[in-house]
This record gives sequence, structure tokens and C-alpha cells, in this order.
Amino acid sequence: MSITTSLPGFRDFYPRELAARSHIFAAWREAARRFGFEEYDGPPLEPLELYTDKSGDEIVRQLYNFEDKGGRAVTLRPEMTPTLARMAGARAGELRKPIRWFSIPQLYRYERTQRGRLREHFQWNVDVVGEEGVAADAEILAVALQSFQLLGLSAQDVVARVSDRRLLEALLLHAGVPADRLMAAYAAIDKLSREEERVIRDRLAKEAGLGAAAIDQIFRIFAHPDFESLTAAYRDVPGVAEELARLGEYFGILGALGFGAWVTFDPRIVRGLAYYTGIVFEVFDRKGELRAVCGGGRYDQLLEQVSGVSLPALGFGMGDVVLRELLADRELLPSGEPAGDYYLVAVGEPERRVVREMATRLRRAGWSAIYSLRAAGVKAQFKDANARGVRRVVVVGPDEVASGQVAVRDMASGAEERVRIESLGEATATAQRR
Amino acid sequence: MSITTSLPGFRDFYPRELAARSHIFAAWREAARRFGFEEYDGPPLEPLELYTDKSGDEIVRQLYNFEDKGGRAVTLRPEMTPTLARMAGARAGELRKPIRWFSIPQLYRYERTQRGRLREHFQWNVDVVGEEGVAADAEILAVALQSFQLLGLSAQDVVARVSDRRLLEALLLHAGVPADRLMAAYAAIDKLSREEERVIRDRLAKEAGLGAAAIDQIFRIFAHPDFESLTAAYRDVPGVAEELARLGEYFGILGALGFGAWVTFDPRIVRGLAYYTGIVFEVFDRKGELRAVCGGGRYDQLLEQVSGVSLPALGFGMGDVVLRELLADRELLPSGEPAGDYYLVAVGEPERRVVREMATRLRRAGWSAIYSLRAAGVKAQFKDANARGVRRVVVVGPDEVASGQVAVRDMASGAEERVRIESLGEATATAQRR
Repeated sequence: MSITTSLPGFRDFYPRELAARSHIFAAWREAARRFGFEEYDGPPLEPLELYTDKSGDEIVRQLYNFEDKGGRAVTLRPEMTPTLARMAGARAGELRKPIRWFSIPQLYRYERTQRGRLREHFQWNVDVVGEEGVAADAEILAVALQSFQLLGLSAQDVVARVSDRRLLEALLLHAGVPADRLMAAYAAIDKLSREEERVIRDRLAKEAGLGAAAIDQIFRIFAHPDFESLTAAYRDVPGVAEELARLGEYFGILGALGFGAWVTFDPRIVRGLAYYTGIVFEVFDRKGELRAVCGGGRYDQLLEQVSGVSLPALGFGMGDVVLRELLADRELLPSGEPAGDYYLVAVGEPERRVVREMATRLRRAGWSAIYSLRAAGVKAQFKDANARGVRRVVVVGPDEVASGQVAVRDMASGAEERVRIESLGEATATAQRR
Repeated sequence: MSITTSLPGFRDFYPRELAARSHIFAAWREAARRFGFEEYDGPPLEPLELYTDKSGDEIVRQLYNFEDKGGRAVTLRPEMTPTLARMAGARAGELRKPIRWFSIPQLYRYERTQRGRLREHFQWNVDVVGEEGVAADAEILAVALQSFQLLGLSAQDVVARVSDRRLLEALLLHAGVPADRLMAAYAAIDKLSREEERVIRDRLAKEAGLGAAAIDQIFRIFAHPDFESLTAAYRDVPGVAEELARLGEYFGILGALGFGAWVTFDPRIVRGLAYYTGIVFEVFDRKGELRAVCGGGRYDQLLEQVSGVSLPALGFGMGDVVLRELLADRELLPSGEPAGDYYLVAVGEPERRVVREMATRLRRAGWSAIYSLRAAGVKAQFKDANARGVRRVVVVGPDEVASGQVAVRDMASGAEERVRIESLGEATATAQRR
């Protein structure tokens, strides 16, 4: 039987799609490099308990888990942070802190595939381990924003919405929420941007057991149009003031890092309840047409849970799927496949050897060079060069071999330049190495 | 509980190991680019039948296969060629032939892990689909050899051993091997380089059912010291002459491609019996200390078997594990992790903002720049810069801010250069962008 499709939810990357993926990966790697982050990687297959210990057995329903031939409970990795925690924890003593690491793992979830939902994606993970100060929080968001800038996006295209779990806690306690109802209140607040006010009020009353006064107070928090307004209102409240000061410092650092215009305060950003412990953020397209492009924050407890080593940590994940949609919408993806540098056309059989030697010379000089792998007419070879989008064509016939000179034709402009065969591939006026 | 190790047979890539991996991948991609090959990728998880249809159920014992939550029989990919065949077959009508594709998949086998044997590795796959001529065979081997050259290896380090299944068949038929015993004879010959002559003779007699005269004839084939000697002996034998001529042309093309010294004829190279149909090769270290670094050849039947589309094809796989051992033995791997460009030292709290703005300027200009994420003494910051191997250190105190000038210290030479803060990161005599 013949098999011509991949599993549902899995992508084939033909060269055109791979070129777009490489374009995104290159920007991710370049942003990480400029911020001094080093690349690491872990195994795509991990022990199942690496995830269940943290998230409980609930998560197993969404995993590609199975029993391997040695009877081990294993799973394709659904996220990278537990691997990071495992690896950093295992060498915590010898690694220089703060650890600045990034990775581009492929991740897997067994999700229902309706609406073209994928079961795999690539996710850029950037993390700082071993630093509790707010400067690290600003640095981590800046590297995410740097990648957007490298991809051609601006503060007009995307916005980072930031909150701080510690500030929210202080504000809610001040509003009269009992400490043991905080989690339920967070869960209701998490729905603020998606549900109507009366639904949230209802949740706060029923699920968090709050009275009308506390609920009114909560809604006064979210009524502030910006961080300055909130700060003016709460700067004298003990417990809240320190949290406001820290978040204010954070916005100041992001300004010095050149990303002030990209960031906004949004106390409705809550994110994973059992996971994050400080500043959290999500990046969205300004038009609001897509899901979050990126999300992250501080998770100071996780390393201890996974590896037994207590180290503060923070980071983010940015997937390739939503980012790619956004870049496609803005026409910021490379069009088509990368084009070659040289196509060498042999007029007849005797020139095929010369063409191979010329290709070798060009390749040794760092150019890409191809030629027809079978005997073919000049017209067919030109057509092939055109179809493959090669930039320059060189025709080699008996005259060229006799004179030792060839004409290099630029396929875009049609301009021709005469070059000695021995100096082909050396930098010339028209020939620029890609 | 705490989890600090990966599954047996799976590697963690800490930044130092990842840097070595990236070095190898970069050479693979660069060699492919120079030869005009385009990158593709497929899913790490594929339908099980993609492999069992070709290799039979035998292979299942070595696979990471399982039943997914939708009841599908799936497996982590053990090799890339079936995915290539599936993808090329699915778009055979629209893709320009010959297809020149490469990929760097991670592959999985459930092997016993004694002697540090791995259950995953990365493998560079390079293939040409849709070309039956011998020039394609030469081109495919040349791209493999190009990667060794880019990694600093020469014809003194590695050798490609080449044979042709069609030539071997013709020689064996001429030696008196009946057509229905060819497979058994191949299987015995495949052991020639590992077992003694009398063991092979025994196998040829018992397993292939050959008489003493045929066996003597076979050993005369392998007694020839090189391709020229074999050609002189058999050039007039009908059926053999054509095969010799084709392989002679192949060696000639490899000479024109600059790789003549890297290639040798070795009729003992047989490779996968059910798979290869023409020229086959394996690349070894000349010292003979390691397993094959690379292997491949022509497999003209596979595309039809997998996708139902009949197209000739050829290619090779080169794993990262043996290659890495070879490069380590020859001291050709990058030492340590990539070093950063700039470390900015803030003398006091007021300069921390200036340092962040300077880092932003440097990063925008394409440099990597880091600074301490917490307040620290100048000595501690210098020590951190040193420990991280950063190339240049800039100290920023009140005097530097007042004068608008800083000293850029090259950490390797100790040389200092005074630069205006606004022109930091512009190309200067000592500062070269990596």
C-alpha cells in the first residue's frame, strides 16, 4: 500500500515551509545571542513523572505517553521547562549563575485536531535561573521583544501585557479577599478579558465567596486605565506600595532597554496558577486577531519541585505557529525558497567536465553552484535554472573553453559580465556572495 | 521526588555539547547549500506501517512504537528515507526533478544500551530524487565529502569505499553463481572484511550452495588491488564491461569534483540487501578505529514501494555520533562555549541605567552584550565577565558618564581602547564583530 500523508496534527515541512521556519529560528537565535543566552537541548522523550509530579495526573490525558520496551512510563515532551529544571538542577553546583539558556524544542500534545489544531509545534524557550531581582524579569521580556524587532515587527504590531502575581495578591488582600480565597479570585480574574462583568461578579461571589463590597473594590482595581493611575491610588497602602515600586522599576528598566513602547500594564494577566510566582506577561498582536504569541514569567518554586535544588527562575515560551500567522499577515515571511548562486550550462558533452571543475571552484569559494546531472540542450538547462530561481547562469561551450573566458548572466537584470574561468567566484562588481 | 537524569540512551545537550552539535550541523547545512540542496523536515512521529511495509514486522522490535490515544499504530521515526519517499511521492507531479533535498532529523531506535549505545541520534540525510544517471551518484558522494572538508578533515583522515550492486551481480554471474543464489552470496561477501577467508568460503558453499570453482572465481575478484586492475581483467566480459564503464565514469566525475583522492573501490561494500540497487558507499576513518561515519547509495525501487510513484533515487545518511568522535580525536571540535562580545560593568547604582542603554545600543548594532542583573562590586563583575569568557569589558563609572568616553578592554590581550559612548559598537581597529 502507499502512504502519502503524515499523522493528523503533524506538519510536513517542504522546502518553502522549512525556509519560513528557518527564518523564524534564525531571529530567535540571533536575539538570544545578542542577550548572551546559550543554547541547550534535552531529549524529546522524557520520564512521564517529570510532568505528573508537577502538574498531577490530569495532564496525562493530553500527553503522547506510552510504556517503552523496558517497561518505563515515558512521554514525548509537552513543554521544555521541566527538562530545563532537571538539567539545571543536576549541575546546579558547577554552572555559573545566573544561568542564561535558550532552546528551540519541538513539543507534543495529544489535542483534538478539529479546526486544524496541531499536535506538535516548535517553541523558543528562554530562561534565567538563579536571579531573583527585577532586572532579570525585564531582561527576559526584552529578549522576546528583540526577536519581534529582528523579524520586522514593531511596537505598533505587538504589545506585551504585564502583571505581577505578588502585586495582584497585595491588591486583593487590601480589597478584603481572605488569603484562602485568593486562588479562586485569580481564577475568576483570569476570565476578565473574555467574559462580561456580571459573569465575573457572579463567579467572585459564588466561587470565591466574596461579598459585594470586596467585589466592588476589585473592580475599582481594574478600572484604572494605566499603571500610573493605579500607583497614584495605592502608593500609600502598606504591602501594595512595595509591589508597585518593584513593577515601576521593571517598567523603567524596559524603557532603558529600548522597549518602553512595547509594554503595557494589565492586571488581568494571571497565567498558570500553580506555576508562576511573580511578574507574568503575554504578548499579543495589537489588532487582537490571534491568540497570545508568547507568554512567560517568574516561577521561583519549580526548580526545587523538579530537581530538589532551590533556585529562583523565570522565562518564556514562544511558539512558531501563531508567530508565523502574524508574520504572514504582515507579509514579513521570506517568499519562496532560497535561490542558488550559480547554474553552469554545458553546451555539449566535452564541456560537462569543465562545468564540474568550475562548480568545484565556485563551491570551494563558498558559492552554491549546480549544473544539469544529465546531458541536456542549452535551452532545457536555461529553463531549469530559471525554474529553480538561480541568480546567475554561465554558459560554457567550445569557444568559452578555448578563450578561457565566460559570460556570467544575472538572471534578474539580464546583465552579462565577462570573467576569466580561473577567477570565477572571486568578488566582482555584480557578483555578491549571499 | 526529584528527577535529575534523562532516559537511558538519550542525551542532554548542555551548552558546551550543543555548541559542538551546532558546529557539525552548520557544516552539513553549508555543504548542502553549496551543492544546491534545499532543507525539508517531516514529523518525528509517523504511522508504523511506513516502516513495516518496507522492512517487514522484524523491524518493530527495534522501534519506539506505540498505540496513540486515537488507536493509531505510530512510531518515533527510526530513519528518514521513508518520510522523504512519502513527501516526495505526495507532490511528485509538482516538484521540479531532480529533487535535491536534505534534512537533519533526530532518529530513534530501541537498542540495548550496553556500551553506551544511544537510542537517539541526529542524522544528516541528503537525497536526489528523479535522476538515474551516474553523475547524480557522484554528486551525492561529493556533498558528503564536502562536509568533511568544511569540518577540517582531509583525504588523509577519511576514505569513501565504493561499490556497485550491478557490477557485483555481473561479476558473480560471470563467476558461475546462479541468479537465485545471488542474495545468499551477497550476504556472505558482506562479511568479508570482518571474517576469515575460510569462514566466507564455508558460507558460500553452505549458504549459497556454490562449488569450489565458483568460490575460487569469487576470491579472484576480491584479490584485485584496485579498480584499474579489475577493469583490465574483466573489460572484455559481456555484461561486466558496461558496469565497469559506468563505475569508471563515476570515479572520473568525482575527480573533476575534486574528490578523487578521497574515494576507493571496494567490492566488499554491499549494504542493505533489500534496499540498494546500484552504486553504494561507506565512509570510514583511515585509521579504521571507528564504525562507518556515513553510508548510502542508489535505491531506485523505494519510492514506488512507499508512495506508489516510480522515481529513481539515491542518497546517504551521516550520523552525528561517530562523526563527533572522529572530530574530537582530531581536535577539530570547537573548545568550550561561544564567548560573548561585551560585558558592561557599572561602578555604582547610577551607572546601571547607562549600562543598560549602552547594552541596548550594542545589541541593536548586532553585538552580544551582557551586564550584571544585580548590583555588584566592580571586582565581582570583572570576575563574572572572565568566568563567562566575554571578549571585551567596559567599565562605566561617574567619570566615564561625565566625559562621555569609556575604555574598551580586550580581555585576551589586555589592550584598552578609548571610545565615545555614542560610537560604541561601531567597527574599530580592535573590535571585530563575530
